[in-house]
Amino acid sequence: MASTGPEPGVIDLNCDVGESFGAWTLGDDDAILPLVTSANIACGFHGGDPSVMRATVATAAERGVAVGAHVAYRDLAGFGRRFLDCTPAELADDVLYQLGALDAFARAAGTRVSYVKPHGALYNAIVTHEPHAGAVVEAVAAFGDLPVLGLPGAAVLRLAEERGLRPVTEAFADRAYTPDGRLVPRREPGAVLHDPAAIAARMVRLATTGRVEAVDGTEIELSAESICVHGDTAGAVEIARRVRSGLESAGVELRRFAWCAS
Amino acid sequence: MASTGPEPGVIDLNCDVGESFGAWTLGDDDAILPLVTSANIACGFHGGDPSVMRATVATAAERGVAVGAHVAYRDLAGFGRRFLDCTPAELADDVLYQLGALDAFARAAGTRVSYVKPHGALYNAIVTHEPHAGAVVEAVAAFGDLPVLGLPGAAVLRLAEERGLRPVTEAFADRAYTPDGRLVPRREPGAVLHDPAAIAARMVRLATTGRVEAVDGTEIELSAESICVHGDTAGAVEIARRVRSGLESAGVELRRFAWCAS
Amino acid sequence: MASTGPEPGVIDLNCDVGESFGAWTLGDDDAILPLVTSANIACGFHGGDPSVMRATVATAAERGVAVGAHVAYRDLAGFGRRFLDCTPAELADDVLYQLGALDAFARAAGTRVSYVKPHGALYNAIVTHEPHAGAVVEAVAAFGDLPVLGLPGAAVLRLAEERGLRPVTEAFADRAYTPDGRLVPRREPGAVLHDPAAIAARMVRLATTGRVEAVDGTEIELSAESICVHGDTAGAVEIARRVRSGLESAGVELRRFAWCAS
Amino acid sequence: MASTGPEPGVIDLNCDVGESFGAWTLGDDDAILPLVTSANIACGFHGGDPSVMRATVATAAERGVAVGAHVAYRDLAGFGRRFLDCTPAELADDVLYQLGALDAFARAAGTRVSYVKPHGALYNAIVTHEPHAGAVVEAVAAFGDLPVLGLPGAAVLRLAEERGLRPVTEAFADRAYTPDGRLVPRREPGAVLHDPAAIAARMVRLATTGRVEAVDGTEIELSAESICVHGDTAGAVEIARRVRSGLESAGVELRRFAWCAS
Repeated sequence: MASTGPEPGVIDLNCDVGESFGAWTLGDDDAILPLVTSANIACGFHGGDPSVMRATVATAAERGVAVGAHVAYRDLAGFGRRFLDCTPAELADDVLYQLGALDAFARAAGTRVSYVKPHGALYNAIVTHEPHAGAVVEAVAAFGDLPVLGLPGAAVLRLAEERGLRPVTEAFADRAYTPDGRLVPRREPGAVLHDPAAIAARMVRLATTGRVEAVDGTEIELSAESICVHGDTAGAVEIARRVRSGLESAGVELRRFAWCAS
Repeated sequence: MASTGPEPGVIDLNCDVGESFGAWTLGDDDAILPLVTSANIACGFHGGDPSVMRATVATAAERGVAVGAHVAYRDLAGFGRRFLDCTPAELADDVLYQLGALDAFARAAGTRVSYVKPHGALYNAIVTHEPHAGAVVEAVAAFGDLPVLGLPGAAVLRLAEERGLRPVTEAFADRAYTPDGRLVPRREPGAVLHDPAAIAARMVRLATTGRVEAVDGTEIELSAESICVHGDTAGAVEIARRVRSGLESAGVELRRFAWCAS
Repeated sequence: MASTGPEPGVIDLNCDVGESFGAWTLGDDDAILPLVTSANIACGFHGGDPSVMRATVATAAERGVAVGAHVAYRDLAGFGRRFLDCTPAELADDVLYQLGALDAFARAAGTRVSYVKPHGALYNAIVTHEPHAGAVVEAVAAFGDLPVLGLPGAAVLRLAEERGLRPVTEAFADRAYTPDGRLVPRREPGAVLHDPAAIAARMVRLATTGRVEAVDGTEIELSAESICVHGDTAGAVEIARRVRSGLESAGVELRRFAWCAS
Repeated sequence: MASTGPEPGVIDLNCDVGESFGAWTLGDDDAILPLVTSANIACGFHGGDPSVMRATVATAAERGVAVGAHVAYRDLAGFGRRFLDCTPAELADDVLYQLGALDAFARAAGTRVSYVKPHGALYNAIVTHEPHAGAVVEAVAAFGDLPVLGLPGAAVLRLAEERGLRPVTEAFADRAYTPDGRLVPRREPGAVLHDPAAIAARMVRLATTGRVEAVDGTEIELSAESICVHGDTAGAVEIARRVRSGLESAGVELRRFAWCAS
């Protein structure tokens, strides 16, 4: 499927959820799920045990939130935040396994997995790591015709499009951008934004004009069909709330980018 | 679905496969898969990593062998052979997770998971452990309308039938039976049979008459739509080979008991 | 070593700590560690990754808090709260593995593991499960001459004493007791106590007289060289604080029950 | 401790053992352990469960074979053969955990861990990856004063020596070397040697003269206090047997390079 690209006046909000595991709770899913249109749900390799997955999928399904597979390297101890130099075949099989597992819970809840968003170190790796990007695409294509959510310009999106899958771009609500449209690295000053009102205003502007102000004050174009918000701290939830209400007040339609056949 | 029960002159042969993991190989899948009609494929919780699962499913699919989900307690270190006192909800979710994961590989290979056979300690537990038996049935029903393969008389088969799932009974080729149709415990003398010719003759008799000789010499009726053979030793493969050729020579039709919609 | 038993006017306070894992935080270790004299530190099988273990041991060592090995069944997904029917040999080896792992961090911090307290389902099992109780004792004896902390009357304490290890009994600050000195099951009304002042008063009485009031109002004798307090909620930390200050005000000496050779 | 370096006429033979896990067997430890003087024993992160560790350590101790800790990245599914981009602190803590766990079994068998040899991807990484090499050294130093076995010229050996630990070099019996003393990569022709007699002759020459013939026919000096042999195939065991008998016939003393205090 060819990339459709952002539609002015319409945007999706996505968030990572279902990252608790066993006795350990992470994030405030109950607070964030009502705010988003797409839920990136952990599939057990970096977080999310089967019971967490089932409950999270059920809640998302009830609310009409799109169920996305938040697939990761097999690294529970590192929460999927560490690059793992597996073979492309191993990675593809690991991704396919996670997709199937999450889809079982989706079907049990009367829906289906609607898109794929790689997590953590995998997300970052496949911006440039072609073999791993190709492995993710291979797994998604083997599973079915699902959109892939990623960073604008990432190798995985290019390969997905070449394979006939729909690439979907996202912006990060609380991150600053360089003049050439990349994320300012976290270690640099100003990389992370904190003011909810300012963030909301930026995202309204992005959704209505396709533009944001870069870290140097210049104005850049940023392709984003979705905005990624966070739900792991009280401050993050507040930002998500402000982004959502800001978009709604500006007349932007909040609409999930992916649907499922069933 | 009501139990259909054994059909004289027709029987299925099932075997555990896909139990290798990472660098570790277990069983001789290449030798046993050509001999059976149904493959119980490990789903990653007791054995079977995603790459092993994908390869095993692909081979089964090519040969027209039914893909069965060999679901287990989450116990890689114990190979699923140790009872784990999880809650029924945890167990149901663990089973559903495994079903979905295996099904992803089945769909990638152009087939589907066609039945469920619990493994190891779970297999044994749900002969009598009603909450765990019910959890397995709940998971299978949530996943779809799949047959459940188990021990004649097991609680899980009764509960499956009550739930509208098809219960399927199996006999063990190399095990002796008590006069009341139960397995002679392994620790007792004569529990395990070793003579391939004698085993093959027993199984031909079972498939054609529904009867076997018990350990005390009496003749008993034994309900079995499938015969479980092993593939983990050279001797086991030879037994499987003799059982298959014996059945074929006797005009018994070897036919998988389960099919998939797709 | 023979049991020494409680010494009037002296008591130990123990608490579970180091149960975070990877990205997941559990409990408020920083709040509770200053309050106790003995720390039951998770060893990686139910919680506690190596980095958490190292940091927790270092903090305990700095404060002079005794480092105890909180050993568990191998069950990260279930937080060690589910009985696992492993063989006694497997359990003994699992326990020895955990003891050694924690001891490496203890030695790196200039101390040693000073005692062993089984966790969760294992703690409960070895009140009556003789083979598992014996396995724990075998492992502790193989590791060295360490005290074992457990429930008064537990099989593991009897077997430990028979083996020449020191059994140490504990009381639970926030739990009610039956007239015959057992814990009131959690599902029964009044099983868990909530009033910090009342709990503190009970524990002062226990430490000075060896007696507490049972759930039916009768007075019972309770053997306890240590009091177990919790640190996983704000309320729990407040109870621990009140118990400690109550004991101190009453002139009870708070003293760890175990020391290490080095 | 300063490097002592190879002593002419004396050499150690080391081999990887204890890599089985649960139901899965790997390698022929019973065949190879009688042939070597040092055993690299898996510690549970890439292979080796606690029961395998205990049995392997016990056998090594009985035979006077040095117990080495074969520490690895936390990657059971990949058998430690995949680079994992963990932080140096995480790696150091993972290594310390493994050292302590193995040492518990060693002490239970009346011996101690005598040296450390990193495994698989970690072994390869720390030839050049300074932060991971430093992390291994930090962990070994925190644990105690143990020698580190590695590739001649590896960063980990240099850092170990700087830290006051003894670096020990090894040669690979069945591998070809480049003229500058590095291993010929496995993907190149002639990288792996197969002729037991020729391999044995090479190793005799190495042990007596410190020289081997490189892949281009030139003669090179190779620092090796130990020779690594394999035990995972029948052919590998035969090579080990021939290397040992060749060395013995040539009057080379087979002597473990590391001893333990106890």
